[in-house]
Amino acid sequence: MSRPPTLEDVARVAGVSRATVSRVINGTRNVAPSIQETVRAAVRTTGYAPNSAARSLVTRRTGAVGLVISGAGEGGDESAYRRHVFSDPFFGRVVDGVIGALRPRGMHPMLMLAESAEAREQVVAHLRQGIADGALLVSTHGEDPLPRMLTAAGVPTVLFARPARPVPAGYVDLAHRDGARLAAEHLLARGCRRPVTICGPLDVLAGQERLDGFGQAMARHGLAYVPCAEGNFTAASGGQAMTRLLREHPDLDGVFAANDLMARAAAHVLQEHGKRVPRDVAVVGFDDSSAATAARPELTTVRQPVEDMAGEMVRLLLAALEAPEAPPKSVIFEPDLVIRESA
Amino acid sequence: MSRPPTLEDVARVAGVSRATVSRVINGTRNVAPSIQETVRAAVRTTGYAPNSAARSLVTRRTGAVGLVISGAGEGGDESAYRRHVFSDPFFGRVVDGVIGALRPRGMHPMLMLAESAEAREQVVAHLRQGIADGALLVSTHGEDPLPRMLTAAGVPTVLFARPARPVPAGYVDLAHRDGARLAAEHLLARGCRRPVTICGPLDVLAGQERLDGFGQAMARHGLAYVPCAEGNFTAASGGQAMTRLLREHPDLDGVFAANDLMARAAAHVLQEHGKRVPRDVAVVGFDDSSAATAARPELTTVRQPVEDMAGEMVRLLLAALEAPEAPPKSVIFEPDLVIRESA
Repeated sequence: MSRPPTLEDVARVAGVSRATVSRVINGTRNVAPSIQETVRAAVRTTGYAPNSAARSLVTRRTGAVGLVISGAGEGGDESAYRRHVFSDPFFGRVVDGVIGALRPRGMHPMLMLAESAEAREQVVAHLRQGIADGALLVSTHGEDPLPRMLTAAGVPTVLFARPARPVPAGYVDLAHRDGARLAAEHLLARGCRRPVTICGPLDVLAGQERLDGFGQAMARHGLAYVPCAEGNFTAASGGQAMTRLLREHPDLDGVFAANDLMARAAAHVLQEHGKRVPRDVAVVGFDDSSAATAARPELTTVRQPVEDMAGEMVRLLLAALEAPEAPPKSVIFEPDLVIRESA
Repeated sequence: MSRPPTLEDVARVAGVSRATVSRVINGTRNVAPSIQETVRAAVRTTGYAPNSAARSLVTRRTGAVGLVISGAGEGGDESAYRRHVFSDPFFGRVVDGVIGALRPRGMHPMLMLAESAEAREQVVAHLRQGIADGALLVSTHGEDPLPRMLTAAGVPTVLFARPARPVPAGYVDLAHRDGARLAAEHLLARGCRRPVTICGPLDVLAGQERLDGFGQAMARHGLAYVPCAEGNFTAASGGQAMTRLLREHPDLDGVFAANDLMARAAAHVLQEHGKRVPRDVAVVGFDDSSAATAARPELTTVRQPVEDMAGEMVRLLLAALEAPEAPPKSVIFEPDLVIRESA
């Protein structure tokens, strides 16, 4: 066949009307199953490929959802930010969970990065124009204006993590305080009495809540003061924080770091200073990412089920697309302690 | 305004015809610059958001390109495969380079995974239906049928790495043999006389060529036999290969691993067996990924400029879209040796 097969060809082969073929292809109900089967057989016979754009106009669905990674402030080095985001194992786990949930539905994630004011405007404009059916938004910055920009533009949106300020969008999150409490109780049970913590950025709720939860659990066991140094979830910041804490508290015997990348870097610094992990200093991380099993010793850590959480974001978004008027939903996941070698 | 603004609203505010507005929005030439500016101002005034699907029908462009990660064979554990792919820092670097090159053009990558026969069929069907303008394909398996399936379906395609069998598609690649030669010469210059190598999967050209290049460079210096154990680019396989090589060749004094993940795991195994790196055994990796700087000691490695290569894939694809009849192009990048601590 020298020209590509058309809808008319399918209709002729199936012996039905053009409208019936269109209804079957676009998944409209009210077509008898036997006729649906006839039409599908004719699609196979003719090799007809419905045009995506044309179908989108009819169904108002694109088959894509925006997976938006947002953060950083104005300006800054975009390329350095991208490198930072994409080298963090967290990102790959989100992608994994999103693809796992979208794929059985024949849908795909469209990756969008929004790390500057200009990039955020572009992302909102493209989503508003219908390039994708909605947005899954992962913010790496507490004061990110993007959640509100998206909901104001009418883009169906689900967030990874509760936003710092209320926004009319659903989200998934972890019970961070409970996770930090698990870490504190494990260190106490091992006999740690001079614990310190490397917390995450305090303008991110996850950073705040992991610090709070750790401090409160320690306080409940009589330890009123836990020295803290702030990192920004990168390995480099974890190493610097550990160096500072070790200088100021040379007799520390336990470290809780707010993510695995910082915990692994902290363990390196401790070892470079002649401390054995876990014998001299126990180290607990957070996330249970690939960094935890790549570390030596392997990290004891608080598991955040990122893949499951990302899959749930997809389900919340698809539900919101089906029922746009329903109030936004949240799903909070429970953390687990994964005991390996470092504590 | 209670209804969304339309093309007619823009035309009215700009004082031009509907067709002129459409031409400006779709980037058609032959509209005077002053009129273009008037139309753009009217778009801003009205808040008009052109519908993506409608525009795609006119321009035959979606603003998306498929970023397809393909590999594995039939069956297998899809979730395990996804975890493996997305926890490899290589993947994040590809995404980084692709986004960096697409974004200034207002385009986005649509992530697609093709690790089973069924998934490959789906990817080809969706791309053929025009869900994206073309495909950037990263195969992790030498016998992957997807490159040929895509070109046969008429999907504009650019490959990361030369395919095992000729396919009419452009590609970017690295001079792998030259990279392996750099590693060999560095180990020789350090005084290594009993080198071994942990090679990549030999059904992947990159795996073959890195092994060949290393062996040939060693042969040129009189070392006819270099013991080799095959890994599959994962950390676990690198550790197993190192354990085997160390058992069979306990006096080895240098290791070249075909990627950083395997090199890092090899260094761990050596240290667990009481060998100091680099003093007793020098270790050289390949890629210069985040695993190289996260390792202790930090890895000396052969740099593969993955981000630049991914950006070049985008440029090759956009060029192919502009000139569909031009013959496919290839761009081969040169490796560099990055000297850190491990060798």
